[in-house]
Amino acid sequence: MTFLTDNFLLQSEAAARLYHDYAASMPIIDYHCHLPPKDVAEDRRFSNITEVWLAGDHYKWRAMRAAGVDEHYITGNASDWEKFEKWAETTPKTLRNPLYHWTHLELRRPFGITNRLLSPETAKSIWNDTNAKLQQQHFSARGIMRQMNVQLVCTTDDPADTLEHHQKIAADPNFGIKVLPTFRPDKAVNFLADDYHAYLDKLGAAAHLKIHTLDDLLVALYRRHDYFHEHGCRLSDHGFCRFFYKPVRQDIRTRSVRNLTAGDDWTDLQNAVLFHIAKWNAEKNWTMQLHIGAIRNNNSRMFVKLGADSGFDSIADHDGYAGHLGLFFDSLDVQGILPKTIVYNLNPSDNEMLCTMIGNFQTAETRMFPPKMQFGSGWWFLDQKEGIERQLNTLSNLGLLSGFVGMLTDSRSFLSYTRHEYFRRILCNLLGGEMEAGLLPGDFGMIGKLVQDICYNNAKNYFGF
Amino acid sequence: MTFLTDNFLLQSEAAARLYHDYAASMPIIDYHCHLPPKDVAEDRRFSNITEVWLAGDHYKWRAMRAAGVDEHYITGNASDWEKFEKWAETTPKTLRNPLYHWTHLELRRPFGITNRLLSPETAKSIWNDTNAKLQQQHFSARGIMRQMNVQLVCTTDDPADTLEHHQKIAADPNFGIKVLPTFRPDKAVNFLADDYHAYLDKLGAAAHLKIHTLDDLLVALYRRHDYFHEHGCRLSDHGFCRFFYKPVRQDIRTRSVRNLTAGDDWTDLQNAVLFHIAKWNAEKNWTMQLHIGAIRNNNSRMFVKLGADSGFDSIADHDGYAGHLGLFFDSLDVQGILPKTIVYNLNPSDNEMLCTMIGNFQTAETRMFPPKMQFGSGWWFLDQKEGIERQLNTLSNLGLLSGFVGMLTDSRSFLSYTRHEYFRRILCNLLGGEMEAGLLPGDFGMIGKLVQDICYNNAKNYFGF
Amino acid sequence: MTFLTDNFLLQSEAAARLYHDYAASMPIIDYHCHLPPKDVAEDRRFSNITEVWLAGDHYKWRAMRAAGVDEHYITGNASDWEKFEKWAETTPKTLRNPLYHWTHLELRRPFGITNRLLSPETAKSIWNDTNAKLQQQHFSARGIMRQMNVQLVCTTDDPADTLEHHQKIAADPNFGIKVLPTFRPDKAVNFLADDYHAYLDKLGAAAHLKIHTLDDLLVALYRRHDYFHEHGCRLSDHGFCRFFYKPVRQDIRTRSVRNLTAGDDWTDLQNAVLFHIAKWNAEKNWTMQLHIGAIRNNNSRMFVKLGADSGFDSIADHDGYAGHLGLFFDSLDVQGILPKTIVYNLNPSDNEMLCTMIGNFQTAETRMFPPKMQFGSGWWFLDQKEGIERQLNTLSNLGLLSGFVGMLTDSRSFLSYTRHEYFRRILCNLLGGEMEAGLLPGDFGMIGKLVQDICYNNAKNYFGF
Repeated sequence: MTFLTDNFLLQSEAAARLYHDYAASMPIIDYHCHLPPKDVAEDRRFSNITEVWLAGDHYKWRAMRAAGVDEHYITGNASDWEKFEKWAETTPKTLRNPLYHWTHLELRRPFGITNRLLSPETAKSIWNDTNAKLQQQHFSARGIMRQMNVQLVCTTDDPADTLEHHQKIAADPNFGIKVLPTFRPDKAVNFLADDYHAYLDKLGAAAHLKIHTLDDLLVALYRRHDYFHEHGCRLSDHGFCRFFYKPVRQDIRTRSVRNLTAGDDWTDLQNAVLFHIAKWNAEKNWTMQLHIGAIRNNNSRMFVKLGADSGFDSIADHDGYAGHLGLFFDSLDVQGILPKTIVYNLNPSDNEMLCTMIGNFQTAETRMFPPKMQFGSGWWFLDQKEGIERQLNTLSNLGLLSGFVGMLTDSRSFLSYTRHEYFRRILCNLLGGEMEAGLLPGDFGMIGKLVQDICYNNAKNYFGF
Repeated sequence: MTFLTDNFLLQSEAAARLYHDYAASMPIIDYHCHLPPKDVAEDRRFSNITEVWLAGDHYKWRAMRAAGVDEHYITGNASDWEKFEKWAETTPKTLRNPLYHWTHLELRRPFGITNRLLSPETAKSIWNDTNAKLQQQHFSARGIMRQMNVQLVCTTDDPADTLEHHQKIAADPNFGIKVLPTFRPDKAVNFLADDYHAYLDKLGAAAHLKIHTLDDLLVALYRRHDYFHEHGCRLSDHGFCRFFYKPVRQDIRTRSVRNLTAGDDWTDLQNAVLFHIAKWNAEKNWTMQLHIGAIRNNNSRMFVKLGADSGFDSIADHDGYAGHLGLFFDSLDVQGILPKTIVYNLNPSDNEMLCTMIGNFQTAETRMFPPKMQFGSGWWFLDQKEGIERQLNTLSNLGLLSGFVGMLTDSRSFLSYTRHEYFRRILCNLLGGEMEAGLLPGDFGMIGKLVQDICYNNAKNYFGF
Repeated sequence: MTFLTDNFLLQSEAAARLYHDYAASMPIIDYHCHLPPKDVAEDRRFSNITEVWLAGDHYKWRAMRAAGVDEHYITGNASDWEKFEKWAETTPKTLRNPLYHWTHLELRRPFGITNRLLSPETAKSIWNDTNAKLQQQHFSARGIMRQMNVQLVCTTDDPADTLEHHQKIAADPNFGIKVLPTFRPDKAVNFLADDYHAYLDKLGAAAHLKIHTLDDLLVALYRRHDYFHEHGCRLSDHGFCRFFYKPVRQDIRTRSVRNLTAGDDWTDLQNAVLFHIAKWNAEKNWTMQLHIGAIRNNNSRMFVKLGADSGFDSIADHDGYAGHLGLFFDSLDVQGILPKTIVYNLNPSDNEMLCTMIGNFQTAETRMFPPKMQFGSGWWFLDQKEGIERQLNTLSNLGLLSGFVGMLTDSRSFLSYTRHEYFRRILCNLLGGEMEAGLLPGDFGMIGKLVQDICYNNAKNYFGF
């Protein structure tokens, strides 16, 4: 009855063998994250654990608020030690939340702390020990990535971004880890945002044209798509509260994209942009990622204070979007321009619908494996044992688990790579348990290969980095 | 392989230890039920088991109908023995339904029957034994409550109620158990009901005014809110088939609330009433309960015969209400009048959406623990092992289990207190199993405290009775 | 750690005992399938395993497409051996998909292959061995049915069908297995289909009238309903993407059913037809089956090539249909013409809603057991261990498992009868596990009877064949 041992989450001998012999040593391809490329370019050193662990982590902020911690110690002006102390007070209150597991996995690796649980009693000693480690060379941004056996990372970047940090990283012959951009054009279709004019000007400047009409916007985005491609980008990413699709009208291409109001047909414009990016993705063999179902900034009082991505987002429900998604994929497929696609849903009630809908577009013409259409890994609120298992089970039941491109961190922190370890342990536990129960063949070569494919090989083959 | 032993539902040693050493002896705070306060005030004696067990229990009625029992033996004129006999015939057909577990838990406590399962063969002996017990002093309404270690009960009461029974109970120095009212104004906003005029007149009489406009209605409800507060009420309760919210228009305050028809804007009026009660709750530090998703009285033929609450209600599905709920909370929060809130959903597909939506309003300004916004215990059709586990898992994954205010019976029967035992066993089983698997620290002090907080301490601290 | 042994899926001693002593020997009543009655009438012999196993099985086609197999080897002109070889290549990629279990269950029974897993290495030997078996008399269509202990089968048939094959089968005194038709009128209400005129002419010819108005259509269907009844039919079956219901308007009975367009009120006409068939079912004591929630033919490119039922269907989501379903049942119930009904849902998120909605119409007036309203077995995408367990658990929690009419194959293949074995093993595993855990009484007589009722007796009693 010991917590978080070497066999953490591995509840059968077969599971332990699968993890230790097959999964543990595979390198990490983290094909979707929110790391700041600047930190990698500059090989940032962190002055203390709060800086690398609490700043920007709205998962922890949310838990601290629920635990009754004053905002002063969360996003306010308290000292880094005070903020850490409050997180240490909060941690025992997170029992059974993934934060409790993540916290101790991250203290274990890379910090090597295995003999203490974070709490008010241990806060000071863990503060001291982790800060001492962070002074060491191999605890810089790049150092941590090397320690964690990372091979490739895809950041998330605006089309207007210069990609200067990616250039700098790529130009360094001494850093073996690839850091590639991802094309995330959400701001370009947020037509009603207050700062949309300013954004269009910035995007136009990057693309060397003045943007007035939808056609201008498409030209600008296309130029940036090319630019990103030259810098190694192979994925686009698109966020939706609700996924909505109508066939694109040709007559809106000359429509102005400035000064739209809530009553206008801006969703038609969004559809048009999405359709064209999908087409360019197909042409360049990129992968399109769709993140569906986050309802954002629900707390307007806190939004005024802290802005977006501060821990006030949640899971949307929908009035049925299977038809919209099917129509979107079909519109592309019928023209032969449906790109490789990964769909992530935030509401787990949609798992089965989604996983079967993408299956309609695994057309044999593609002749590729891993399959072209992917049901994405448990995302955000679903990135815990139960959510990961549900995604794996849905995909197993309704698709081909063997072709799954696997886990990603989706994180803003350099300490999150143990989420790959977490995922791998959960995967091995599922498979090992079923081997012992006679539900899967007891063949370690066969199941071990399945594990390694999902942990690494499939992603490598699918994205073609 | 013995059914329903002392270690019922406790499938590991750690689970058994958690239950017996930490959970079992905690008192019961039953903060939401439908017991008739009159029965407590008069310390009702029951002439037989049918009276206390089958009368009013539409869970059992539903099962009996599905089992092919004639309505004569359910709600009809059959004798109490005949009705009991039919329930005994039905019981073996309920295997794997929570009724099978509840039935035998209730025979075990308080009746002490542990050596027989209810069936046609045992019906007569169980009828005799339970009826003999019911003649004893400690099997009166108050006697049962004392036996079950109940400390406090909140009934569910209409704003027009005199609360005379609550007064009588409170005035009795010899009865140590608190019985408090809950403010449930559903009838006051059921504008289209046939008897709505009569209801308004009754409410107006209780509040000493004649109700014509929305303003009148609000004044009346406010006076009753005060009156309930004086009588110890600290919760309101609101039922919704579908949760719908639009910002409250000020111009409808002078609108007549009589003679509304289906085409009118009565949902706006409902919103206005809900908003104001929420505000009063915040002012008086009450807790607001929202019960969302029951679709009622689906069988019109039986509704004509038996009226409401007869076993013809079921789980609604929705065309998306996350946005409505978020808007309602935000409208209150932005004015600083969002009260402590518990949300219960009847459709388990909404678990994740709901639990994350309330998390958006755990603002640090509150600095309270247990958290202000609560994801309510498995309700009605979800009050069984699977539903309880799903609620506990959702809350654990997406919020703080450690701050959960725990179980309630929601029952009309004095025999339902073993549902707290049922819940506690399920909770201890989950936690104990995870301790043994190394998913939780193997620290009985730590996990035992978690258990006691959820079983009792959190409710005590949260409601502030 | 051996795969698919005699105790496959039976993870406790009690489970094994329940299966081997109670379930295994029960005959099969397959009350819903898509077998071609012609094959039974002619006692078809299959030249090879591809013919009986891969032709028409769009589950396997879907998996092969996801596995990157060219359509040439799926629905194209490749030889039967080549197609089989490609399926053998695909099989190892389906680990954890039910296809992997089904494949090896079917090789085990009736083919007796227990020492090999299907893969490229074993493809040739399995091809040879199964083809040799298929030459034997007891591997004809009827031979396989006899081997699998089938007692009765209900096919799925269009109202215009002559039922000549059913007549031929019924007339054969030497074939002990009943093969009855099911009345499936979906084509008759597909008013917008391109070939609807031709269909109406065919149906009219079968019913000896020319169909113009809704009244004509109802007369034609009623005559065929009678005709089907004379041929032993006792079920109707109805498919819905979304279930929609409005009270039937009397004034549409004289409405033409030809030349309707998308803008017309054809859903009202569909409602009217459904209502009347339900009424006829009630009059003749038939059972109505509703299959809700398949969104079909999502890939228009492949639809043009291959037509319907080719593996491009998926799970729909809905904007709430509990109210529609309740209204439909109530409209019938209030007139005393609600027939026995089985509802199947494709989106498992609807399980709880559906299972409670049908519970509203288990009226005591019926006095029948198994209950009149049935929550159907895991359907199509849900026909795997997880889906079957979810259906069994939902029904147990919210209804009476003991009255469940049990499993069906829904299959087009004579090799699918092991799905009953699959279901029975899963059922026994659930029950046996709970006996050992003390959640169910450890009484094999009691639980064994429950098993046999669900496997066979309930269907026999419910349908009254």
